[in-house]
Amino acid sequence: MSGLIEYAEASPEVRAVYDDIMATRKTDWVNNFWKALANDPPTLRRIWASVREVMAPGALDPLTKELLYVAVSVTNGCRYCIASHGAAARARGMSDAQYAELLAVVGLANQTNRYATALDVPVDARFIQPPHGQ
Amino acid sequence: MSGLIEYAEASPEVRAVYDDIMATRKTDWVNNFWKALANDPPTLRRIWASVREVMAPGALDPLTKELLYVAVSVTNGCRYCIASHGAAARARGMSDAQYAELLAVVGLANQTNRYATALDVPVDARFIQPPHGQ
Amino acid sequence: MSGLIEYAEASPEVRAVYDDIMATRKTDWVNNFWKALANDPPTLRRIWASVREVMAPGALDPLTKELLYVAVSVTNGCRYCIASHGAAARARGMSDAQYAELLAVVGLANQTNRYATALDVPVDARFIQPPHGQ
Amino acid sequence: MSGLIEYAEASPEVRAVYDDIMATRKTDWVNNFWKALANDPPTLRRIWASVREVMAPGALDPLTKELLYVAVSVTNGCRYCIASHGAAARARGMSDAQYAELLAVVGLANQTNRYATALDVPVDARFIQPPHGQ
Amino acid sequence: MSGLIEYAEASPEVRAVYDDIMATRKTDWVNNFWKALANDPPTLRRIWASVREVMAPGALDPLTKELLYVAVSVTNGCRYCIASHGAAARARGMSDAQYAELLAVVGLANQTNRYATALDVPVDARFIQPPHGQ
Amino acid sequence: MSGLIEYAEASPEVRAVYDDIMATRKTDWVNNFWKALANDPPTLRRIWASVREVMAPGALDPLTKELLYVAVSVTNGCRYCIASHGAAARARGMSDAQYAELLAVVGLANQTNRYATALDVPVDARFIQPPHGQ
Repeated sequence: MSGLIEYAEASPEVRAVYDDIMATRKTDWVNNFWKALANDPPTLRRIWASVREVMAPGALDPLTKELLYVAVSVTNGCRYCIASHGAAARARGMSDAQYAELLAVVGLANQTNRYATALDVPVDARFIQPPHGQ
Repeated sequence: MSGLIEYAEASPEVRAVYDDIMATRKTDWVNNFWKALANDPPTLRRIWASVREVMAPGALDPLTKELLYVAVSVTNGCRYCIASHGAAARARGMSDAQYAELLAVVGLANQTNRYATALDVPVDARFIQPPHGQ
Repeated sequence: MSGLIEYAEASPEVRAVYDDIMATRKTDWVNNFWKALANDPPTLRRIWASVREVMAPGALDPLTKELLYVAVSVTNGCRYCIASHGAAARARGMSDAQYAELLAVVGLANQTNRYATALDVPVDARFIQPPHGQ
Repeated sequence: MSGLIEYAEASPEVRAVYDDIMATRKTDWVNNFWKALANDPPTLRRIWASVREVMAPGALDPLTKELLYVAVSVTNGCRYCIASHGAAARARGMSDAQYAELLAVVGLANQTNRYATALDVPVDARFIQPPHGQ
Repeated sequence: MSGLIEYAEASPEVRAVYDDIMATRKTDWVNNFWKALANDPPTLRRIWASVREVMAPGALDPLTKELLYVAVSVTNGCRYCIASHGAAARARGMSDAQYAELLAVVGLANQTNRYATALDVPVDARFIQPPHGQ
Repeated sequence: MSGLIEYAEASPEVRAVYDDIMATRKTDWVNNFWKALANDPPTLRRIWASVREVMAPGALDPLTKELLYVAVSVTNGCRYCIASHGAAARARGMSDAQYAELLAVVGLANQTNRYATALDVPVDARFIQPPHGQ
């Protein structure tokens, strides 16, 4: 898998996914991530199906979902994903102040996660959820 | 640093932080994370000051901040932090459906982060932000 | 440790390792990883000894070992290692279709690892191996 | 999402997935991972669809796919996934010697990934793949 | 948050932090990390306060603290932090031989961490610390 | 690989490594990590050889090496390794105050690593080392 598959050179199967991406997102372009995945059409189809389902509006609004995506991508150090989902978050209204607060929470969580692990802090009894249905 | 420092045995310096934690959170108890940090009072004071500032309501609401905390903690595999910030998120109104969607985004981001990295996808020109002030 | 030590400028100790790398791999060149390690000859010697032993054919064939190396490198986000072990895997016969499936498994595992951790799923009794010798 | 949903108490939607898991795997039981996911049926359905597609025999055989899954799970420190996919690998024929070699590769890759990153080793020209189709 | 805020264009609030960084470090320049954080002055102030407190001489000397910073940054794959704290460590006297040994420990720990996790090694009774005050 | 191989039941090859571990460390016991590795004698031998070489006194003293080991283990969330190398550090003189400072640096680095990555901070020219020999 290498190179970027442009719409003009894409197979009908790949074009169908590109068309669905643009229609779902109400845009007229497809970003490089999908053009890279398109080297393996089954991968392109499967990942897009997951993204379309997971990122759709639901119990969480689309902006919150993009913020969560950025938080994970920053923690994992994925430069492309920080750029692409950061742009998606801004397109959905993320302000500079919100981004600064997102990074503050991400930084803090990465810090305190290590304290909790190092000190092997026992989980408080009242944090333990009762089993489902009780 | 080991063991949990209970209020009754805490020094005045530690009690002052515990009191501020309870007052800020409008609760009458302190969770184990702080009791573990209290073995080193300067650490307790410094980390609490950061948490109080970062997690206060701001451009992002407190629930969104807790969701971001959980997303990072799941990605890092911090069991205590998933439990504590999951409970905090539920206390701020997170529904089961919202938690399911949070995990879906976290799982998806962890998956697609690896594709973007493995394929070394070049950042799209339109994702690159202009420098500050332009 | 910085810079790349070329064969022509290398000490006899470093050249001996380079010669062994080329002889073991049946190639006439040494890749940059070793030229960077060569700034500290004991490191070069120790790491090469481990790589030669671990990557030799054994119960797992050399291609499978390279695939595993790539899977770890993608998970850790090591760009150099993805490139070098991806090339080694292709040299041992990895097809484009196999690489696509490797990335699919790596992406999926990174996703489901987070679900298992977040949900704190208890290990099934039948997954627990009996102690050695029983 | 909490607790484990047993077959007897499951909704028809969840039972349909459980039935498909058992039919695909030719077994008569479902492991805890799925019973935990079943608290959110859309998640259960989506993740199972991905696992069924990705882990099916293809260009890579099922044992190799399980080995890759274990390699990622060890790197991420997912205890449940190491146990479940380790068991799946053994069920597909993984010997003790193969597991020892798998761990050797995983350990080595985690070590050398850090050297390559710390030394910022430039990617060798001959490791760079030509764009697709050239 | 984007771009680098130079001293000449900085607000008085930002300049006060820059001045304190230079005074604390006894240097006449500020590195890019702070110029990037300065896009959000509260973040700049909060992170600098933590760094000044944590990195000050104490029970551990400043060189040891920089070595630890580098060890974490290499493990996380943070290129900027490896460069900046590597330079800080060299400025505090880290020799090439010490850096080579640091990387050897970091590589080894990343390797053996995976063995301990994969094999689920039980913690030896004598490694368990008695609770505080006993 | 499973179970712990005690000295009494160990093969001569394994006993030789155990004997060397005890002689090198001037102790009369072997911790569980090695007893777990002993299920695969070549692994036991290879990993011990690396540990013995890397952890020996050199340009860095043994305490500093143990501190670095702990820093990596905390970052990776390896519970066993935090316990074993924490104990080793204490045995070499690590005080409670030093451990508190170690955790402070580890927590801070995990936090600032994410800022540097998220903001894609360019490496300062003066942090870039000249190539070897210049």
